[in-house]
Amino acid sequence: MDISGPNPELLDRFAAIVGKNHVLRDANDLAPHLVEGRGLYKGSSPMLLKPGSVEEVSAILKLASETGTPIVPQTGNTGLVGGQTPRTGGSDLIVSLERMNRIRDVDPVANVLVADGGAILADVQKAAEAVDRLFPLSLGSEGSCRIGGNLSTNAGGTAVLAYGNTRQLCLGLEVVLPTGEIWDGLRRLKKDNTGYDLRDLFIGAEGTLGIITGAVLKLFPQPVGHQVALAGLNSPADALKLFERASNLCGTALTGFELMPRIGIEFVARHIEGVRDPLSEPHPWYALIDISTSDSAETANSMVQSLLEQGFEAGLIRDAVIASSVAQQKALWHMRESMSDAQKPEGGSIKHDVSVPVSKIPSFMAEAEQAVLAAMPGARVCAFGHLGDGNIHYNISQPTSADMAADKAAFIGRWREINAIVHGIVLAAGGSISAEHGIGQLKRDELAHIRSPIEMDLMRRIKQAFDPAGIMNPGKVVIIP
Amino acid sequence: MDISGPNPELLDRFAAIVGKNHVLRDANDLAPHLVEGRGLYKGSSPMLLKPGSVEEVSAILKLASETGTPIVPQTGNTGLVGGQTPRTGGSDLIVSLERMNRIRDVDPVANVLVADGGAILADVQKAAEAVDRLFPLSLGSEGSCRIGGNLSTNAGGTAVLAYGNTRQLCLGLEVVLPTGEIWDGLRRLKKDNTGYDLRDLFIGAEGTLGIITGAVLKLFPQPVGHQVALAGLNSPADALKLFERASNLCGTALTGFELMPRIGIEFVARHIEGVRDPLSEPHPWYALIDISTSDSAETANSMVQSLLEQGFEAGLIRDAVIASSVAQQKALWHMRESMSDAQKPEGGSIKHDVSVPVSKIPSFMAEAEQAVLAAMPGARVCAFGHLGDGNIHYNISQPTSADMAADKAAFIGRWREINAIVHGIVLAAGGSISAEHGIGQLKRDELAHIRSPIEMDLMRRIKQAFDPAGIMNPGKVVIIP
Repeated sequence: MDISGPNPELLDRFAAIVGKNHVLRDANDLAPHLVEGRGLYKGSSPMLLKPGSVEEVSAILKLASETGTPIVPQTGNTGLVGGQTPRTGGSDLIVSLERMNRIRDVDPVANVLVADGGAILADVQKAAEAVDRLFPLSLGSEGSCRIGGNLSTNAGGTAVLAYGNTRQLCLGLEVVLPTGEIWDGLRRLKKDNTGYDLRDLFIGAEGTLGIITGAVLKLFPQPVGHQVALAGLNSPADALKLFERASNLCGTALTGFELMPRIGIEFVARHIEGVRDPLSEPHPWYALIDISTSDSAETANSMVQSLLEQGFEAGLIRDAVIASSVAQQKALWHMRESMSDAQKPEGGSIKHDVSVPVSKIPSFMAEAEQAVLAAMPGARVCAFGHLGDGNIHYNISQPTSADMAADKAAFIGRWREINAIVHGIVLAAGGSISAEHGIGQLKRDELAHIRSPIEMDLMRRIKQAFDPAGIMNPGKVVIIP
Repeated sequence: MDISGPNPELLDRFAAIVGKNHVLRDANDLAPHLVEGRGLYKGSSPMLLKPGSVEEVSAILKLASETGTPIVPQTGNTGLVGGQTPRTGGSDLIVSLERMNRIRDVDPVANVLVADGGAILADVQKAAEAVDRLFPLSLGSEGSCRIGGNLSTNAGGTAVLAYGNTRQLCLGLEVVLPTGEIWDGLRRLKKDNTGYDLRDLFIGAEGTLGIITGAVLKLFPQPVGHQVALAGLNSPADALKLFERASNLCGTALTGFELMPRIGIEFVARHIEGVRDPLSEPHPWYALIDISTSDSAETANSMVQSLLEQGFEAGLIRDAVIASSVAQQKALWHMRESMSDAQKPEGGSIKHDVSVPVSKIPSFMAEAEQAVLAAMPGARVCAFGHLGDGNIHYNISQPTSADMAADKAAFIGRWREINAIVHGIVLAAGGSISAEHGIGQLKRDELAHIRSPIEMDLMRRIKQAFDPAGIMNPGKVVIIP
């Protein structure tokens, strides 16, 4: 890495492309763009550029390729693996899409919406709602994350069960290649078998193959009926059985099936304002069940009723509550969505974003807990997540101790060790070490370790074919030797 | 192209890999493998190899890469663009996966099925049914087409509206690369964000980047309710309005919405045994509506009833019939599925497999008909297809004449001219010239013409990165200069 960085004259040439009002060079201004949310990575950069058009992005990347200047694309800066963070001690230039935040077009008949890469997810959701349509991507960070980043990380979220990941919600892309060339793939077609699937190659590439500046997104009819229930259960095995019944009973009307442990309910009840446990007795595990129907509200209600009846009869459910208002539906979801935040006052948290085949969730949960507790007695496993997708946020809160603050650093220092234990069990079950957050810097070396040489080689061949100058988000996902 | 071909000694080395009982070298044995269904392409080949394992496929491709021997992968030989046909006058070796036809595993809890690349689609469907699950891919050729070919062409079919193309039905792949290396990407995960999306690059690559030898496929719950209706309509514009209502009313329960013209109904009534027009009066257009529900059979019935009532009230439907038995449901679908065959006795047919944004179907149909009739007075447009996907099989039967047989050749001779007219209108509407059949040989040169230079260049870079020796299905999709 060239730590001397671009010379001032070259920086001025980059700045001239966007105009000096759209450049950050002051250390204080740059600071928030140099760290990612958890503080795991802190990078360095001499300059952040805010292009206002696809042509300006193109000019930046063309100059970068010609001069060998490394570029980090950044949208909402909400990623969790350091993919959007410049390298530590480096001089990567940051290209922020925050000015390119328009909704370009909304077509409720064709059910498509075209957005700039810098459009905020919540704005896309609102634009869809305004024409009585649903854009189903939903994340905790939806008020600040942006579509280009959602696509580049193939973001997941809470609606994947029914609607798929971001990949499944995209019909076409506009991408500026590392060379500055613009690929106009803004197609609006459901069916188009004309050549290699470039779209899906850019989706999930974490900005290492180009910058996504525009996207055609799929819209859906707004559900007519919606109902949410919370069930207290004995075990993940019972949760899986209940999920199978829900899946058979509701088909695609099953829009969420989230698993939560007792400790997670305790954390949110203790730390999140306004949250209380809606069930009268404690239960070892909980399932949050979300059903959306296209025909009528009654169908959603009767589906939930039938499912809970089946669950009680089969001895799978200990107790349950059905939301009696929209406010209660939101309150039940708020418990689930606050679970990560509720861990913060409990001290350090070592996190995993893993997936296994759905049928292996119970055995994975049992094996992982046993192994983690053997390595770290007293660790408080708060594993929750999208059971229906096989995706568990396997979070571990530090053991309670006399001096939580003092022990936090030592606990966090064991991040890689605990990761290795959990990931080993995940991989043995045919799982993924990154279900929805991506690779970035955090899992880059681990990826190279767990994937076959041929798979890593194919990725490097693609990277070199698309980015011969090696300027696009270097140090992320794959390293070119 | 080296028309001298591999020498006999090299052919023997290839044959030794699979054993002489699994090699075709006789011209009569080879003949059926050298032509595609419509007879548009007739290729030549000295030998067909039937490997029995992934390792044998690997050994064949390794030897091919080392010796520069071109290879054409072939599964069911049902493709419609010459992608599976060896080049005319060439000496490509054919690798058939017909012996690799096993269902490797079925897991109804995880809703996955693992199949060899040579597994016949109907066998996959049956294996899913045997565990009360649905594999929704459904094509006219399902009794003979094979999964590796379905994936390589990203096949569409009649269930795309609810379940997506083959791409959306696949979780993981096993691929033998042109170099003979084996990529084991047989993952069973719904969520896995670990590096570039290699899976989707191989899907739809028409065997030019490697041979798909295995796949993990998604299964779905069997629908509980199912109902089919046929409605007589005035125009494609009314069909689109009815589709919008159906989409809003039924959501994902709408599993089919097919458009058919009067002439198509006449063709099937005239030429397909047992088919009769179920409506008492003729109508200019027809919509076949298919609804599948997960909760109960009554829901499917009441949805169809409601939709037809809405359609009558809004003046969109002239007359309609709801199937009163499973046999009648099948009979209605049989009309639609026989429409291509019913054109054959009517003389030559110039075909198009196009898509446009769904909202543009009416204007496309009007413009295309006007342009085709201007170029060829008397041509009989029999345009039908998957309205809900924006995918129309824009077929044109030759004008009736005193000597249909004599005029057929002259008519077919205008294939490219008529293609150019229809494709021009499609492209102006932001559409695709190959919605579901792929590029193969038939549309290869046209693709290079309609795509931007940067898009073609990216495809060539990928091709060269994956197949440096240029041996995989050469002459298809993209040409390396």
